[in-house]
Amino acid sequence: MEKDTAEKKAIVLLSGGLDSATTLAMARSENFQCHALTFRYGQRHKLEIEAAEKVAVSLGAAEHRIIDIDLRAFGGSALTDLKIAVPKDRADLEDARDIPVTYVPARNTIFLSYALAWAEVLGAFDIFIGVNSTDYSGYPDCRAGFIESFEKTANLATAAAVTGRGRYHIHTPIINMTKAQIIIKGTELGVDYSLTHSCYDPDSRGKSCGRCDSCRLRLKGFAEAGLKDRIEYQIMDVERRSESK
Amino acid sequence: MEKDTAEKKAIVLLSGGLDSATTLAMARSENFQCHALTFRYGQRHKLEIEAAEKVAVSLGAAEHRIIDIDLRAFGGSALTDLKIAVPKDRADLEDARDIPVTYVPARNTIFLSYALAWAEVLGAFDIFIGVNSTDYSGYPDCRAGFIESFEKTANLATAAAVTGRGRYHIHTPIINMTKAQIIIKGTELGVDYSLTHSCYDPDSRGKSCGRCDSCRLRLKGFAEAGLKDRIEYQIMDVERRSESK
Repeated sequence: MEKDTAEKKAIVLLSGGLDSATTLAMARSENFQCHALTFRYGQRHKLEIEAAEKVAVSLGAAEHRIIDIDLRAFGGSALTDLKIAVPKDRADLEDARDIPVTYVPARNTIFLSYALAWAEVLGAFDIFIGVNSTDYSGYPDCRAGFIESFEKTANLATAAAVTGRGRYHIHTPIINMTKAQIIIKGTELGVDYSLTHSCYDPDSRGKSCGRCDSCRLRLKGFAEAGLKDRIEYQIMDVERRSESK
Repeated sequence: MEKDTAEKKAIVLLSGGLDSATTLAMARSENFQCHALTFRYGQRHKLEIEAAEKVAVSLGAAEHRIIDIDLRAFGGSALTDLKIAVPKDRADLEDARDIPVTYVPARNTIFLSYALAWAEVLGAFDIFIGVNSTDYSGYPDCRAGFIESFEKTANLATAAAVTGRGRYHIHTPIINMTKAQIIIKGTELGVDYSLTHSCYDPDSRGKSCGRCDSCRLRLKGFAEAGLKDRIEYQIMDVERRSESK
């Protein structure tokens, strides 16, 4: 499994979206041996998981594990509860005060906790997470303050805290980048964004809606980067729509 | 589901052992409406889960949820990996510097993260966990420093951190109590300890081994409390053994 023992091991949280794909590419460019971790958590569709699998292979992850966790048990989000509709064409896309219904309670806390468990077993001290506070300011667990606090907690939670064998570091390489900057950086590092999936509400053929927050941030990012998004959208005039905003 | 709307809601982590049973009894005695949360996490046996179910009912939990999480995916502990043997008759039972192989990497971080997710959905701000740093000093995630840090993280991780709707409090009512004090307190509050299960390695009939760390701490606690432990043990001379240590 270990191709190069000189490489430091890292856990990389991988969702199948473009932020985490770019984060994986950045971790690889820093010579980390990447152990990718994806969660199957009662999403509306499995396209994200398939995208994560393709991205892990294409970017040379050493290993990729997919863990089942049942966040539907608690509900409370449009991403885990079919009774809550995914909002479309929201006016307040970038309003920091508003927490979208697509927010999943304590999701990143749970994801980082699992990453920490795996890191501890592997003897890795580096965890990469593609949180982004610029485009997703409405999600409390995408902010630097949360990540710094989790890192402190991780260093108290684990055997290494007692033995002094090392210190955990949570890497958030894209936290302050705009979506356009992320796409430009990833493109430089060879990320194939046609493998990634962002839509919260794709149709049965896997085409993205182009209207949920995630699609709109993605389209806006590609437009600002001056690059073409090569995934398929349900609506034909989506480019015109995103340009007119 | 809500019997009394005057009661404040709390999440109580419930393992089926005597520490968490006592913690639930203490939360009930403070008039919390208790939502008990148990994890099925690849333990060697299901006796703990059955014990948790009985304890939740007997102590008047408003609700009890059992969540499947697969900590076997990572391994690294005698409690989740069948290839690692549960140690018996360890000489260094109370050595703080030693982390036992029964330590499960990042377990309490994962458990508290799920509790936080459920609390957020329910609108509860109180989480009870029966960690104990006196008897389990070898587990890094049973110490006050870890809990305080997790509480800070929780208050940054969640929607309430942005909306200011409330602050999470992680309650650890038994953290500084000895096992004997815990048993005396629980007995006063009506805990039926014969419903609880502590052994890491029971036999096929469900009898406790009496020799793993967990059995020995339990037996020592009952002996010091001057009370009789009414669960069944595999070895008949267990009382003599624990007294001679």
